[in-house]
Amino acid sequence: MAAPHDYAETPRTKLHRIPARGSYDRATVHAILDEALVCHLAFVHDGAPVVLPTTFVRDGEALYVHGAVASRMLKVLASGAPVAVNVTLVDGLVLARTAFHHSMNYRSVVVLGAATLVTDPAEKRRALGRLVDKLSPRRSPGLREPNDAELGATAVLTVPLVEVSAKVRAGMPKAEGDVDDAAHPVWAGIVPLHVEAGPFEPESADAARHPLPVLPALATRPTPASR
Amino acid sequence: MAAPHDYAETPRTKLHRIPARGSYDRATVHAILDEALVCHLAFVHDGAPVVLPTTFVRDGEALYVHGAVASRMLKVLASGAPVAVNVTLVDGLVLARTAFHHSMNYRSVVVLGAATLVTDPAEKRRALGRLVDKLSPRRSPGLREPNDAELGATAVLTVPLVEVSAKVRAGMPKAEGDVDDAAHPVWAGIVPLHVEAGPFEPESADAARHPLPVLPALATRPTPASR
Repeated sequence: MAAPHDYAETPRTKLHRIPARGSYDRATVHAILDEALVCHLAFVHDGAPVVLPTTFVRDGEALYVHGAVASRMLKVLASGAPVAVNVTLVDGLVLARTAFHHSMNYRSVVVLGAATLVTDPAEKRRALGRLVDKLSPRRSPGLREPNDAELGATAVLTVPLVEVSAKVRAGMPKAEGDVDDAAHPVWAGIVPLHVEAGPFEPESADAARHPLPVLPALATRPTPASR
Repeated sequence: MAAPHDYAETPRTKLHRIPARGSYDRATVHAILDEALVCHLAFVHDGAPVVLPTTFVRDGEALYVHGAVASRMLKVLASGAPVAVNVTLVDGLVLARTAFHHSMNYRSVVVLGAATLVTDPAEKRRALGRLVDKLSPRRSPGLREPNDAELGATAVLTVPLVEVSAKVRAGMPKAEGDVDDAAHPVWAGIVPLHVEAGPFEPESADAARHPLPVLPALATRPTPASR
């Protein structure tokens, strides 16, 4: 039985490959979802898999994505078709002395379920505002709000966080007992990767006079030029 | 009729949403595939979509991925099931003055087809070497090569680059004729994002004495600490 702070493991989210890297911890899952800017959303269309990258945001225990009303994604998903969502943050290169032990450090979440079309106007506006605020925190209140034509052309879908798991690899290459420095004199270890933002490029001289936007959590390291 | 340097458009790769962002240009596709470290690979299992992140490499007109022989991905894909692969590089935040015109700059490739198990030992070894060299160019010759047990536990799959398209968004927010600076005095423009590597973390004092690894093309900006 899962603790209240964990998602329940299901046959479909049970990790078979290297289960020690798995987690059903809600805080771990939320942190990965909140840091990532893009998810990969998969569904089945005419018997074949489709996978699309798209922006998304978490609000409580739901994911929201948006798209054009006329899009294929919307038509398939709003019919209640099963969906799989993957969110992956690449944290580093893992360089070993054997080819076999090379790896990457990453944090990843899978969400399985079905999407629902958001029809409540207040929920739809809130989700669209949160999608903007994910790109730049606290940005949406200063903007011109979506008008009726824009709202009508935009569909918002939500997927509940019910069938969810995380997978995380961190740290050094796995111990390579049979390889020593004399036989393979190469550098080994990890090379962290992170996302850097900037320099800011304003669209106009007018725009440039206003305070710079707040950067999202993943991009907390501005480049020297934008400091 | 597609030019020889283009992939042929098919009903499944024809872009319906904002076709101006689409491309079938081989050089554009190759550049995106060669810069990205991770792809998202989707297939259908028991009628439901599955999407997994995995490292990959391009060699000529084929993608290669690898995994444990015992993995579900391998079992499904080696049977010839249809596969969809998406590779996405996030290039920047696009911040407008209207919520509706927010976007992201990105470069993305979709590959559709079926995977084949690589059974030729020479091709398998070459693909595994290229997977390592993608993480750090020219690294594989200095390593301890995969032994028979490691080769036996690892499966390599290949997907040909036949049904392929790219989609790219670049540049400033779309013109917002109805919004002016006085009404919405907020910063607008683009915030480029890029991947930064470092500082290097050697696994041991021995490892630290050897020359630093070459960084992959996506991570050409070392952090100040690793310069």
